[in-house]
Amino acid sequence: MADVDWRTLTRVGPSTPMGGMLRSYWQPVLLSSELPDPDGPPVRVRLLGENLIAFRDSSGQVGLLGNHCPHRGASLFFGRNEENGLRCIYHGWKFDRTGRCLDTPNEPPESSFKDRIRQLAYPCEERGGVIWTFMGPQENAPPLPDFEWLHVPASQRYLTKHTQDCNWLQALEGDMDSSHVGFLHGMLNKHVPGIKTAQGPAREYLAKSLQPRFDIMLTEFGLLIGACRAVGEDRDYWRVTAYLMPFYALIPPTGDAPLRVNIWHPTDDENTLVWRIDYHPLRALTEAELENLRSGLFAHVNPDEYLPPSSAPGGPWRPRANKENDYLIDREAQRTKSFSGLTGFWLQDRVATESMGPVYDRTQENLRSSDRGVIQVRRLLIRTLEAFQDEGRQPPAVDPATHRARAVAMELPRNASWSEFVREPATAHGSWRLSP
Amino acid sequence: MADVDWRTLTRVGPSTPMGGMLRSYWQPVLLSSELPDPDGPPVRVRLLGENLIAFRDSSGQVGLLGNHCPHRGASLFFGRNEENGLRCIYHGWKFDRTGRCLDTPNEPPESSFKDRIRQLAYPCEERGGVIWTFMGPQENAPPLPDFEWLHVPASQRYLTKHTQDCNWLQALEGDMDSSHVGFLHGMLNKHVPGIKTAQGPAREYLAKSLQPRFDIMLTEFGLLIGACRAVGEDRDYWRVTAYLMPFYALIPPTGDAPLRVNIWHPTDDENTLVWRIDYHPLRALTEAELENLRSGLFAHVNPDEYLPPSSAPGGPWRPRANKENDYLIDREAQRTKSFSGLTGFWLQDRVATESMGPVYDRTQENLRSSDRGVIQVRRLLIRTLEAFQDEGRQPPAVDPATHRARAVAMELPRNASWSEFVREPATAHGSWRLSP
Amino acid sequence: MADVDWRTLTRVGPSTPMGGMLRSYWQPVLLSSELPDPDGPPVRVRLLGENLIAFRDSSGQVGLLGNHCPHRGASLFFGRNEENGLRCIYHGWKFDRTGRCLDTPNEPPESSFKDRIRQLAYPCEERGGVIWTFMGPQENAPPLPDFEWLHVPASQRYLTKHTQDCNWLQALEGDMDSSHVGFLHGMLNKHVPGIKTAQGPAREYLAKSLQPRFDIMLTEFGLLIGACRAVGEDRDYWRVTAYLMPFYALIPPTGDAPLRVNIWHPTDDENTLVWRIDYHPLRALTEAELENLRSGLFAHVNPDEYLPPSSAPGGPWRPRANKENDYLIDREAQRTKSFSGLTGFWLQDRVATESMGPVYDRTQENLRSSDRGVIQVRRLLIRTLEAFQDEGRQPPAVDPATHRARAVAMELPRNASWSEFVREPATAHGSWRLSP
Repeated sequence: MADVDWRTLTRVGPSTPMGGMLRSYWQPVLLSSELPDPDGPPVRVRLLGENLIAFRDSSGQVGLLGNHCPHRGASLFFGRNEENGLRCIYHGWKFDRTGRCLDTPNEPPESSFKDRIRQLAYPCEERGGVIWTFMGPQENAPPLPDFEWLHVPASQRYLTKHTQDCNWLQALEGDMDSSHVGFLHGMLNKHVPGIKTAQGPAREYLAKSLQPRFDIMLTEFGLLIGACRAVGEDRDYWRVTAYLMPFYALIPPTGDAPLRVNIWHPTDDENTLVWRIDYHPLRALTEAELENLRSGLFAHVNPDEYLPPSSAPGGPWRPRANKENDYLIDREAQRTKSFSGLTGFWLQDRVATESMGPVYDRTQENLRSSDRGVIQVRRLLIRTLEAFQDEGRQPPAVDPATHRARAVAMELPRNASWSEFVREPATAHGSWRLSP
Repeated sequence: MADVDWRTLTRVGPSTPMGGMLRSYWQPVLLSSELPDPDGPPVRVRLLGENLIAFRDSSGQVGLLGNHCPHRGASLFFGRNEENGLRCIYHGWKFDRTGRCLDTPNEPPESSFKDRIRQLAYPCEERGGVIWTFMGPQENAPPLPDFEWLHVPASQRYLTKHTQDCNWLQALEGDMDSSHVGFLHGMLNKHVPGIKTAQGPAREYLAKSLQPRFDIMLTEFGLLIGACRAVGEDRDYWRVTAYLMPFYALIPPTGDAPLRVNIWHPTDDENTLVWRIDYHPLRALTEAELENLRSGLFAHVNPDEYLPPSSAPGGPWRPRANKENDYLIDREAQRTKSFSGLTGFWLQDRVATESMGPVYDRTQENLRSSDRGVIQVRRLLIRTLEAFQDEGRQPPAVDPATHRARAVAMELPRNASWSEFVREPATAHGSWRLSP
Repeated sequence: MADVDWRTLTRVGPSTPMGGMLRSYWQPVLLSSELPDPDGPPVRVRLLGENLIAFRDSSGQVGLLGNHCPHRGASLFFGRNEENGLRCIYHGWKFDRTGRCLDTPNEPPESSFKDRIRQLAYPCEERGGVIWTFMGPQENAPPLPDFEWLHVPASQRYLTKHTQDCNWLQALEGDMDSSHVGFLHGMLNKHVPGIKTAQGPAREYLAKSLQPRFDIMLTEFGLLIGACRAVGEDRDYWRVTAYLMPFYALIPPTGDAPLRVNIWHPTDDENTLVWRIDYHPLRALTEAELENLRSGLFAHVNPDEYLPPSSAPGGPWRPRANKENDYLIDREAQRTKSFSGLTGFWLQDRVATESMGPVYDRTQENLRSSDRGVIQVRRLLIRTLEAFQDEGRQPPAVDPATHRARAVAMELPRNASWSEFVREPATAHGSWRLSP
């Protein structure tokens, strides 16, 4: 269809083309720990533009129902969670996690009416401490996601979330672009060594390490985006980011540090919930690593730096540093310590993509060679959406057999072919194939 | 007209069909006590989507003028209230409560211009501590409302207001449905005796008392909606709510307790000002009754639990428990004490209907036998609006001779015809007739 | 063009007719002191509906760039200001104050791409402590504004700004109407002597001094609007306001007091940034005068009475007295001390015009003889816009040779012709001519 363009990719509601394709995948809903107890308080969730109510029923299973009671429309958020169902506070109508109406107690008992009522319900499953749901036609539901991080013990994993006030695609694109690392995330005395103050020698920015060479491979799960920087005389340093369709980015580690996965999950067209996971496939995270992860300096918000839910309509995951306070930018630090003056890689990424506005008008861009990752992701999404729409073709990475990718950082001999070497380290378990 | 449906009923602005019909009735504006003194500060009012300025002039009479000065548009809210008129602070133009321009002091005295200027003005009258206005064509103005509660001494009446963030009709509908009482307003150890915790025997919800049988009578003022529950071996307990057109609900008392009237007055299409009156026709309210009414537990907001006007754009009647703070729901109380976990009948009603959203899409409903009151009210409103539009027929209860209804609670012999018995107790003074 | 009306005048965006004409003039951007240091933090600016980033570069020159980096759209507000350019924090692309791209350090050095990239940039100049920019086609840029107040030493000038939540034209119109002074700005025991309380003799409002006679002269810079009041037996007191196109009002002084200039600068269609300048052409302001100016009682906000920028999205110039708090009106003071109950001439003007709403619907007005200034300003703007559009004629006061006007207050013999006498005192330096 000729009319699929970047704008189409940004619209995620139930009746949109992209919304349809996204509903071919399982969606992350909540942490299991956000619904800790059977029959505990329901929790509001907004996914792909839909308002839903999540609850853990008496059996410990999670349900995800439409917000409005099908009787007269009161919100089930205020409902009573009891005896394997959520009961509306208005007239006591009760629904189980499959949407079946169990009880209409203000109606005569002989009424068989309740058998004909169904509430919107999406099936939920838990894996790896995450609640997942499938919002597409149930007959199309693939097996659960099978990412490596879902299978490691909790001690090997650290996960946080934060809200981002812009469209999911523009947020995701930041991860497809390895060339911003030396700038946006740069420390003035480290990655950009000559720059001690703003008056320093700007020539240093041109240091080769800041201009990686890109190469991209199409795979059965999405893309591998290699960024190559020369190291010393005869070596290349390859950082290979994986784009796993539709909203997963696998970020290469440094040395034996944990691997990272970012999920850029569409709340609606103008809001994204960012999930960030650090995990080590082989060992528990060390206390020192956990301290780093909690510090707020790297990929995760410092847990003490969220807004209290009462002042954050977006729920409990809204960071204190916000567009309303210019993200607490420290201009003195920007002159003397860090390229951005913003504290935390997560925040630097957020500012870069949020400050484009809710949905950035891509016709205003000037893309260059360093943006090949961004370009390829859009192309892949557009091509996939066209094939999904026109031919009903199942999109890549719906099948969890394709979920076994890893991001990779590796040193190779100068000018070695990375595609020969990347396959093994980029495989988490099982194997994956290049696209035919 | 074929296009009158529930949507039509929700639109109340000056140029809408329903707005036209609603303007056949007197509207409650303010408590007399909100304009305590002659020449005191003007007060902003929003009624049926119109922004108006109320003031009490030097003679003690109340005026209600359009917000913008007809000269250059400055708001008369900031005007000087003096010598039987409101004077704009911009150029001193002055208007009396009839909208007549008394003075244009920045113009030459010989100018007769002011005689040709009129400000929008709605006539106001006071009765029963309430300021009323008529916003329709003045030649159509009926006599003032003649409700029983307007005639009792102040000692026999208790009145409060609160804002509600949804359309008036959906708020009103909550009163037409007696079957929610045992649920929304239920205490776990009382109305739903077996339910002590969420794990308790849900079967008890099916207790017959929670499934009243409904019967509805059309009257000259609107509807009588009877809800019948069996009591003991051979008696029926009838609770008869009166719907008095267009926005009044008369709620049956318990024993010798005060009678209640709720007014669901449209501020605009998405906001309602709820007036709640408890009154006893025969005697002063007792100190114990007043304590109950002020407690916040029943139909009235606790007077200490309003937001300060400075932080409440809706004026002085915005309760602290709000959609912004999930109405301060107490989930532990919801498990162990009350069905809803919300404190106060007024708040429980508000949450049920506000949580539907500003204007609930009725095509998403599933109405049942217990919703017959709701169904009949809509039908009556639609029929009335069609007759008003097509034939210019005066709607029911415009004529104050029809205002003499009362809500009734009564015990009758099992299967007695309630219509034989309801007439006398449901009459406040004078008499009323069934619709022809 | 037949379709130029008052509505056209209120729309200021880049692609609107009025926006086009306004871009024939230099625009005030910031105080020089708001960008105190070379390489200091950039500042957000919104002018005529455009979001821009101002910065002072290493050479001390001011740049004004489009908000979004032309690479991928990150906001340059967060950029690094260093070595004569603003560098985007995302990938380090750098732009000088002319919009030239100096560096794309994440691209290969051999790339000549950067020579083909230009960022939107408006040229800035500083004069009289104010940063000015020209947003029209650069070949049309006239010489810098040449107002008298721009040439006096800082000791002879006092300047503040404040936000106003309405369209620029309706804010400006308040200055064109001298007849509101005795009302809006009146003190009950002074300008309106008989009125001590609201119960006082309203007849006094009719005192001749409150009904000035207006006369208006068209000049090459705009208008001179004379308001004549009889003084004693045989003298006339003339207050002559100058309207200098397009958004300047020159307000007559009292005695040897400083002269005043107000700039009603369009932030966008619904917001105005008001610049207020008091200056004396001949001498430094005295300490007593400065104390008055800082008091908040007259034309300027008390510097301690701005909202902290953190709670004012409009930036650092938002007064604490606001529509959100009814401008802190003091109703008791309104009864006994001042006509308005509002503290400060600046605030009284703001309330009068803001309370009309964001863009007042002029079809609701009733203009009179006292509104001739308002009428003439609109006519002049409409005529000028038509000539600009249809014939490309340069609007009045684009040429700084016409900037030499002054407002005047003078006493003349009764019925003397003011136009004979006004020329000399209304000339700041050089001379100006009547329109042909």
